[in-house]
Amino acid sequence: MNNVHWLLPEGIDELLPPKALLLEKKRRDLLDLFNSWGYDLIQPPFIEYLESLLTGTGGDLDLRTFKITDQVTGRTLGIRADITPQAARIDAHQLRRDAPTRLCYVGTVLNTRTDGFAGSRSPVQIGAELYGHAGEESDQEILCLMLETLEKAGVENVYIDLGHVGIFRALAEESGLNKQQELELFDALQRKAVPEITVLLASYNLTPEHHLRLSSLASLSGDDALVRAQELLSGAGESVQSALKQMERLSNLLAEQRPDVPVHFDLAELRGYHYHTGVVFAAFVPELGQEIARGGRYDDIGQLFGRARPACGFSADLKMLMRLANSENLVEQVGIFAPSDDDPVLRQRIRELRAEGRRVIVALPGQKGDASSMSCGEALEKQGVEWVVKPL
Amino acid sequence: MNNVHWLLPEGIDELLPPKALLLEKKRRDLLDLFNSWGYDLIQPPFIEYLESLLTGTGGDLDLRTFKITDQVTGRTLGIRADITPQAARIDAHQLRRDAPTRLCYVGTVLNTRTDGFAGSRSPVQIGAELYGHAGEESDQEILCLMLETLEKAGVENVYIDLGHVGIFRALAEESGLNKQQELELFDALQRKAVPEITVLLASYNLTPEHHLRLSSLASLSGDDALVRAQELLSGAGESVQSALKQMERLSNLLAEQRPDVPVHFDLAELRGYHYHTGVVFAAFVPELGQEIARGGRYDDIGQLFGRARPACGFSADLKMLMRLANSENLVEQVGIFAPSDDDPVLRQRIRELRAEGRRVIVALPGQKGDASSMSCGEALEKQGVEWVVKPL
Repeated sequence: MNNVHWLLPEGIDELLPPKALLLEKKRRDLLDLFNSWGYDLIQPPFIEYLESLLTGTGGDLDLRTFKITDQVTGRTLGIRADITPQAARIDAHQLRRDAPTRLCYVGTVLNTRTDGFAGSRSPVQIGAELYGHAGEESDQEILCLMLETLEKAGVENVYIDLGHVGIFRALAEESGLNKQQELELFDALQRKAVPEITVLLASYNLTPEHHLRLSSLASLSGDDALVRAQELLSGAGESVQSALKQMERLSNLLAEQRPDVPVHFDLAELRGYHYHTGVVFAAFVPELGQEIARGGRYDDIGQLFGRARPACGFSADLKMLMRLANSENLVEQVGIFAPSDDDPVLRQRIRELRAEGRRVIVALPGQKGDASSMSCGEALEKQGVEWVVKPL
Repeated sequence: MNNVHWLLPEGIDELLPPKALLLEKKRRDLLDLFNSWGYDLIQPPFIEYLESLLTGTGGDLDLRTFKITDQVTGRTLGIRADITPQAARIDAHQLRRDAPTRLCYVGTVLNTRTDGFAGSRSPVQIGAELYGHAGEESDQEILCLMLETLEKAGVENVYIDLGHVGIFRALAEESGLNKQQELELFDALQRKAVPEITVLLASYNLTPEHHLRLSSLASLSGDDALVRAQELLSGAGESVQSALKQMERLSNLLAEQRPDVPVHFDLAELRGYHYHTGVVFAAFVPELGQEIARGGRYDDIGQLFGRARPACGFSADLKMLMRLANSENLVEQVGIFAPSDDDPVLRQRIRELRAEGRRVIVALPGQKGDASSMSCGEALEKQGVEWVVKPL
């Protein structure tokens, strides 16, 4: 049989030693960080009924979700392509707390397509979500936790893109766009396809003011974009003004706590924000033209699960963070080689060493390979009745 | 919309706080244990091409595996229902070492049916595999590691069922059963359906000796089953004698190291051993009529992946181990409540406490719920210019 049979599908990878252990270490570091900030771990299921997975999330997630038939009920199940909507369901339907609820998670998600994080179809999504508070202080907490997450993971030189999906939505509504028009313009905007945007806007029969505001969105990015937006959109309605104020306040709160982190404003940066309702943000590093973490506010999602709560959060792909971090973090596994010998004193010594966290590999009679081929730099040797660890 | 929409499918569960954290703790404890025994962590993919997942495993795993179509290639993918065959592929096709290779893993597997571990269709399979050694010493190592795993997980009063699939296979061959007959008898035997076995055997036109040997299998269980088997099967061929000797030697090796653990022999205990070739074993506790961990030898599986190696291993469902352990292990998460205040001294104090592993929850302006509703037993209070932790 041909070896090609054992290739993995496109965008699906596996982690071998020692990388799998490095991922485990980063997983622990980040979950411990979340815990120290008060975020409670949840482990949502890998598959759910499809409508439960997709409620409130929009068509893009539907296309990215693998479907399977439940042989027990005949109903359609989905394999999660995103854990955030699962966390929202758990907050709204299972926990039902009044006080702010902080949740975190880590787990594999699957995508039918490779257009997500760096072409992967099986990212290990790690993230944190904060429910029950609508102010910019909770956005700030999530942003700061995202930054600490990236630092803890060993990613350096991070900068932030900050946007607000409410601005596009309010402008579309003010301009009288129907749902179809809003969706096609949203699609063109997130690709920053300026010629396409021009053609679309010309076809909509807009007033000159509405035309100007919508057409300006694609250019409203950069350090000074917020100032320019406040000018260009000064004639827009209450929702737009309020969204601009939220962005300003959040960027000020962030600058106070993290003056070291550059923030770019981008009012057309809507990619990946399928269920977001307010501020949205993404983290970038200079060497990669793709976000390495993203998040934002998604206040409406819990309603369909029985309880509307303000919500914001962020997520990242743990495998991508591992690849971005310095590879010197690779864990060197050094073991102690123990002979195949049924001396109870040796066995007791091995138990003790393992309990101390040392790695002891016991030789198997007639085995191939010596201590060094088993990555052992030390060995247990008999001295009198004792067994002592000696370097090889 | 009806709440029933947010029910989870049968056999699919989710872990909420604080149980998710308890599972994480057990996961860490067990992976650390495996590491101290020299087992390297691997993280096989959640989905693979179906033929890669099922190679060498038999029809039962096929029926238990969810299938999906890869939209990129049109080929059929499977969601893993068992990680052991993936580990065998990685040993044979990816690592290709000569020395014994020790691998471990933890991850969710999915089952189309609920007949696995306690009706779950989404166990968290945790296990260890040892490749490259054919002697009973490696079976002993795996058995001892399985016992330590259960102890570390907090499961008490474990006993072991020990069998050997080679005995049934050799008897079926000696008796001249065809593949179809072997499979139907295997199926009846693993259900211990004695009337069915009687009817089947009567239909096979066997010699009296072969009939007696095959019919005796269903009764060969209990502490003295090995002694009775040595007598009843004394006329059987070389393979049967060799299998009985392996069982005897392994049970002696185990008794030496773990005289505290009761061992029952069971020559018809073949349930779940779909790809096994030699000794098979399962761990039980008195309060549950179902195995809580199982394993054995499966020497042939790597061949189809390009390299035949002796292999043995064990696995368990981490969620089941958590349920069996004492619930007093539940982690009490006690936090320190910090006011919403932008004093840099407070921020620095919070950073320090979190870095020490303490859990600090920052109040959000106007939030619902007080410190105690956030599980905080302490709070940060200002004393002069300092912030100190005070009990509430």
